[in-house]
Amino acid sequence: MQRVSGEQERFEPTVRVGLLGGGTVGGALAALLAERADAIRDRTGLRLEVTRIAVRDVARPRPGVDPALLTDDPESVVHGDDVDLVVELIGGIEPARQLILEALKAGKPVVTGNKALLAEHGPELFQAAEAAGVDLLFEAAVAGGIPIIRPLRESLVGEHITRVMGIVNGTTNYILTRMTEAGASYADALAEAQALGYAEADPTADVAGYDAGAKGAIIASIAFGVAVTAADVHHEGITGITTEDIEYARRMGFVIKLLAVAEQADDGSVGVRVHPAMVPVDHPLAAVRDSFNAVFVEGASVGDLMFYGRGAGGEPTASAVLGDVIDAALNRHRGSHATVGQIGTARIRSIDEVESAYYLNLEVVDRPGVLAQVAGVFGDHQVSIRSMEQEGLGAEARLIFITHRAREADVRATLRDLEALDAVDRIGSVLRVVSDES
Amino acid sequence: MQRVSGEQERFEPTVRVGLLGGGTVGGALAALLAERADAIRDRTGLRLEVTRIAVRDVARPRPGVDPALLTDDPESVVHGDDVDLVVELIGGIEPARQLILEALKAGKPVVTGNKALLAEHGPELFQAAEAAGVDLLFEAAVAGGIPIIRPLRESLVGEHITRVMGIVNGTTNYILTRMTEAGASYADALAEAQALGYAEADPTADVAGYDAGAKGAIIASIAFGVAVTAADVHHEGITGITTEDIEYARRMGFVIKLLAVAEQADDGSVGVRVHPAMVPVDHPLAAVRDSFNAVFVEGASVGDLMFYGRGAGGEPTASAVLGDVIDAALNRHRGSHATVGQIGTARIRSIDEVESAYYLNLEVVDRPGVLAQVAGVFGDHQVSIRSMEQEGLGAEARLIFITHRAREADVRATLRDLEALDAVDRIGSVLRVVSDES
Repeated sequence: MQRVSGEQERFEPTVRVGLLGGGTVGGALAALLAERADAIRDRTGLRLEVTRIAVRDVARPRPGVDPALLTDDPESVVHGDDVDLVVELIGGIEPARQLILEALKAGKPVVTGNKALLAEHGPELFQAAEAAGVDLLFEAAVAGGIPIIRPLRESLVGEHITRVMGIVNGTTNYILTRMTEAGASYADALAEAQALGYAEADPTADVAGYDAGAKGAIIASIAFGVAVTAADVHHEGITGITTEDIEYARRMGFVIKLLAVAEQADDGSVGVRVHPAMVPVDHPLAAVRDSFNAVFVEGASVGDLMFYGRGAGGEPTASAVLGDVIDAALNRHRGSHATVGQIGTARIRSIDEVESAYYLNLEVVDRPGVLAQVAGVFGDHQVSIRSMEQEGLGAEARLIFITHRAREADVRATLRDLEALDAVDRIGSVLRVVSDES
Repeated sequence: MQRVSGEQERFEPTVRVGLLGGGTVGGALAALLAERADAIRDRTGLRLEVTRIAVRDVARPRPGVDPALLTDDPESVVHGDDVDLVVELIGGIEPARQLILEALKAGKPVVTGNKALLAEHGPELFQAAEAAGVDLLFEAAVAGGIPIIRPLRESLVGEHITRVMGIVNGTTNYILTRMTEAGASYADALAEAQALGYAEADPTADVAGYDAGAKGAIIASIAFGVAVTAADVHHEGITGITTEDIEYARRMGFVIKLLAVAEQADDGSVGVRVHPAMVPVDHPLAAVRDSFNAVFVEGASVGDLMFYGRGAGGEPTASAVLGDVIDAALNRHRGSHATVGQIGTARIRSIDEVESAYYLNLEVVDRPGVLAQVAGVFGDHQVSIRSMEQEGLGAEARLIFITHRAREADVRATLRDLEALDAVDRIGSVLRVVSDES
């Protein structure tokens, strides 16, 4: 692996990188590797060279990419004698999974940003990397350019992490920010996000919380050291959030954010859920605006931590991939490799077991005795009320409740009974509230 | 290094840890190692065992610490056959420096939280670790429990970092938060911080910016890969900040924070400075309250990142040390070690070369023509005014300027000439402004 560099007249270990995928992130990575080559060599003593790029269409012009590197045969990247390290950026489950497994088996470290694959087959891939004794790094799979996987798997591996809350979907954070700061409706904010290229024509994966859920599953696996897959995640999206909810939240000192919440209970069971939540304005997550992401980590010893930055985009994501490529290249050179450690299993908590404070917005008939009746239903299910606001709406009244910490199952039972009351015309939004009561 | 665990009937690699220092952090670390031993073993396959603790006074009772481990001879920790890894928590320059060098030379990885030592002798220690081929890890030296050194040295080693701005002193952030949120005077907020144990009886190291400066020097060394020591840092403290400054800042949409700013210019030269600054309220650093710390990193590809958490305290600091201990133990077990990479040299920029936007608060005679005269002085030195507010003060007027980005030397020349004007009665605070113009 040593080669003579004519200009420098010294031996420089070179690590030859093969890319699977030449899209936005792949192109940004190739450009970044070229641009930063000297700086990386000066800092690490390693030369990184892209030797193959597998793409679907080799004929398509790709500015800044040497056409001689292109191939439409991904197997040639995985098995090529001139590839020491494989970067997988094609996304999706297959053939990405198979290609990664083959590369690992061939003793080649793999760097990937494939969130869907890791959320579904993470444990299998971790085990394959461990068995092969090579790196499988995936910083770019969660929260784009933000270093969160490495801090969790290395810095915090000894920490007792109790909860992680992430704003890990930039599209929905942009939409909610516009609703909060410009008073936009959900539909208008979504249209704006689409016009800016933040949201897809079919925005379901973002607005229904599936994208955030996949990231939440990966975060939970690493933070708690147990296998969690996308199928274990409870999802609620932001499509039902109204400007009214945003306004009530503001008046009560909250902002609404879509959170991926991963918790481990004292008995070791783990729950991951995605839902909109009311976040107190003085909580660090409340200041995460526009399409930025942030991951808030609560540890028994370290206290509260937050990691903030760009969760998407070609360049930030390529930056995360580059960090992993350098790490894997250095490890390979040293004959070492990183590991996510032992990933065990844990019981997955049902959403019914979640405990949280809640915000409820009810429209009721405006007549004496209704509040007592409504409050009685809360009491029947051991749901304790922290604050209440009442507002006249002509013949109706709006009741806004914030509860103390309660079990999800009890809140659902409360809602069922409230719906059955004649005096209750409509149950509006029900949102979980991030509080210090936990 | 393998030992039989009778209960488990399997071989478990054990790494024997020797502590130099049994104070707050050392005690918290020993407790944490005991409490998390099973979890660490399950996750990493390693057993970590504290075998020696060097303290000044072996007779002092230390709850939870086995007295048989105590010694007053630090050399016995460094050279003991029953110590594989050394944790230095005694602080100060000597004998810490000598002990660390000896441990490294003996082939033992070292974990330290010694900010003063690293800020003064970092390059010497990095080189000694490199020569010995063992780890020297120091996450706890900067910003307590926040993972910032590992992300900078690993995740971002390939990134072109242009600027790092840190709120890295909890004492001053607490004082400024109280001045901002409770309207407290500097003296009252300092007294409060002292009563809470956040500030020393002699608060100079904190309030004059020396503590933040040492951390800034370490951050700059790792972020830019060049040797920067505490002596290279320009310091301005918060003792001159008035409630008036805080109030003007608020009205204009800013909060005042003490920042350690490390910048690398296009020519490679590096500057590190500590000073209070006006931070826009919608900047993520503005939301960092009380004694929390945060480090804001600006990268050419990754964009803006922020790392937030507890910057001090026994438990958060012990958590950072624990992360390093596990990392070093795993590396030792794998026969590998981390590195800060090649640390080069760069020209240190003088404060005169800094470019920033500025806030200036002048008291002037309230008569026609004064503003034109004052504005003329700015123009003479190519300092361009972005906004101005005027306020009557009886026979006087107060002029509040915010400039566009200007060179420090030009601003100082402007101030000299303003002082010489008859119409200028007093120049109040002059603060740098964090802006997007950079």
